[in-house]
Amino acid sequence: MGEVFTVIMAGGSGTRFWPQSRRARPKQFLPLGADGTTPLLTATARRVSGLSPRHRTLVVTRADLAAATASALPDLPAENVLLEPVGRNTAPCVAWATAVIQRRDPEAVVVVLAADAFIVDEGAFVAALKTAVEVARAGSIVTLGIKPTRPETGYGYLRVGDAVEGAAAGVKKVAAFVEKPDAARAAQFVAGGSHLWNAGIFVFRADVMRDAVKALLPTVAEAIDGFDAAAREGREAETVAAKYAQLPNISIDYGVMEKVAEVAVVPVDCGWNDVGSWQASWELGAKDAAGNVVRVDRGNAILADASGNVVVAPAGKVVALVGVKDFVVVDTPDALLVMPRDKAQDIKKAIDALTAAKRDDVL
Amino acid sequence: MGEVFTVIMAGGSGTRFWPQSRRARPKQFLPLGADGTTPLLTATARRVSGLSPRHRTLVVTRADLAAATASALPDLPAENVLLEPVGRNTAPCVAWATAVIQRRDPEAVVVVLAADAFIVDEGAFVAALKTAVEVARAGSIVTLGIKPTRPETGYGYLRVGDAVEGAAAGVKKVAAFVEKPDAARAAQFVAGGSHLWNAGIFVFRADVMRDAVKALLPTVAEAIDGFDAAAREGREAETVAAKYAQLPNISIDYGVMEKVAEVAVVPVDCGWNDVGSWQASWELGAKDAAGNVVRVDRGNAILADASGNVVVAPAGKVVALVGVKDFVVVDTPDALLVMPRDKAQDIKKAIDALTAAKRDDVL
Repeated sequence: MGEVFTVIMAGGSGTRFWPQSRRARPKQFLPLGADGTTPLLTATARRVSGLSPRHRTLVVTRADLAAATASALPDLPAENVLLEPVGRNTAPCVAWATAVIQRRDPEAVVVVLAADAFIVDEGAFVAALKTAVEVARAGSIVTLGIKPTRPETGYGYLRVGDAVEGAAAGVKKVAAFVEKPDAARAAQFVAGGSHLWNAGIFVFRADVMRDAVKALLPTVAEAIDGFDAAAREGREAETVAAKYAQLPNISIDYGVMEKVAEVAVVPVDCGWNDVGSWQASWELGAKDAAGNVVRVDRGNAILADASGNVVVAPAGKVVALVGVKDFVVVDTPDALLVMPRDKAQDIKKAIDALTAAKRDDVL
Repeated sequence: MGEVFTVIMAGGSGTRFWPQSRRARPKQFLPLGADGTTPLLTATARRVSGLSPRHRTLVVTRADLAAATASALPDLPAENVLLEPVGRNTAPCVAWATAVIQRRDPEAVVVVLAADAFIVDEGAFVAALKTAVEVARAGSIVTLGIKPTRPETGYGYLRVGDAVEGAAAGVKKVAAFVEKPDAARAAQFVAGGSHLWNAGIFVFRADVMRDAVKALLPTVAEAIDGFDAAAREGREAETVAAKYAQLPNISIDYGVMEKVAEVAVVPVDCGWNDVGSWQASWELGAKDAAGNVVRVDRGNAILADASGNVVVAPAGKVVALVGVKDFVVVDTPDALLVMPRDKAQDIKKAIDALTAAKRDDVL
């Protein structure tokens, strides 16, 4: 019986946590979860370590993030870090990682997830993954479906269909993948009870995914076959460096999941959070009595009539908030952000201005 | 006829401009006026330079602020800087400076003012001082009375009495010095038209003040006589160092002005501002189209939907405000302050917390 491998996709480069996140240090390397000290990538690897110990955990990331990855996961074997010379969305990433795993264990079951989410109830999450692994062993491609807790318009949804025969109770077929809805439809989805959030967490047998990619994304499959051939000659890295940029920019959702005949879904209610903004970081964070999430050296935060804030500052910095309510204050040595928490989505405006001004030094 | 000397009192140690102001760099050394670049002390000396060129301008300050004073006024002769070993309120300060001036010119007229105010209409201010100098030559102690523009409860007031005979039009006798009023009385004062703000700007002949101090503050007069005697032997600095701390902690207002038989007042409407808080600095400062006062390196302020703010940051720092209205954001290398502008008086709470925590490193 094949072993369980986990692929953590850690190539993201979001700007929603600027100025703490930078191009060279994106969100997955920041301690945005509840404890305020563990990088999201580190927490993600730890969360699945019962299923996949380090030697069966692979991280796919951008070549320029190799050092940051090694720093976040110092005990990850070097051969388990797959470096993309350029970002190419998730289909090439999943296909390549699946091929690498298949070489090690032809019967492997693969769990794919993003590096930069946070999970409140790790027990429920891991239990759902274990169920998904069993369903995948039988040949299905499986996804986790997160029970929605609010009418979120920023996520895709899964419409739940019939039960999967022979699988554990609660495992269903995906009746449809649903694009991000408007507010009214999102509210219907939450009320109706037959829609789940698509969190991009997939489980499959390596050979099953390989066949699906061959059928649905033949150019990707061909390139990956080339990587396999190069690997046999010990020159995979050079081949990837030369060819990866030619792979199509397509997501695994769109390229494979939505097109295969049947996807199974394991519903789970585990407090999944994609940590999409400073607002989410505040929601997740441990709070003081006044509802502040404070990531400042002990004794260096001076909070006078200050409540509901997120406060982040580098080592040694004193930060005083006086009469400030529901704000985000994030200081770094070379850049400072101040905004009301409910304007967290507007951080894009600051990023756009810095981009227009070619301020690569602080992006 | 005696020359006009100006005494600038620059020993203040306010905390209302923290974190830009520190114990070692109090408000008078900060560029809080309209241009955002000239320290208040420098602007004060420049403002009176038509009356008192540098060789007739004296600065009284704390011994530990000698270097900062020399930096703000590089062309001030060293012998014109009087260093108080400890702060002792304004009566000893004025009495000592008057004695030093009297040695240089027994008929001198002395202008005394604080280093840390801002004046919008310098022409009106200097014209009023010139009038005051003429009245002082005739033997009166004179004060400038500022026409109140709002029912300020933070200042003392002067009640205006009869005209001074033989003086220029508008020069009156002070009928009474009035303590800081409550809001209702302050409103009456502004509406009534017979009260002026006491800005602590005094003009007098050196010999007249000397006599007044002898009559009203004999212990101060005796100590100052001792300084004169020591000066004749070339050891004034040692004597001041040994004796200054024994002088009574008393203001020139309380100790002399309120007790002499007659004080004349020259009313003036010159946009005087004591720059008492970050709110005042915003009021005075040059604003962008959205009403922001921005003291950040050119190109380093990212203001998205941000209006009515004061933004201060050190060289090289990028500051982004997104959706922030009417805030004070003051960054320094080791301390950051964020507060709504209308809470500027509450900065005291942050200072109190830092003081209680013995954070002398950032005070």
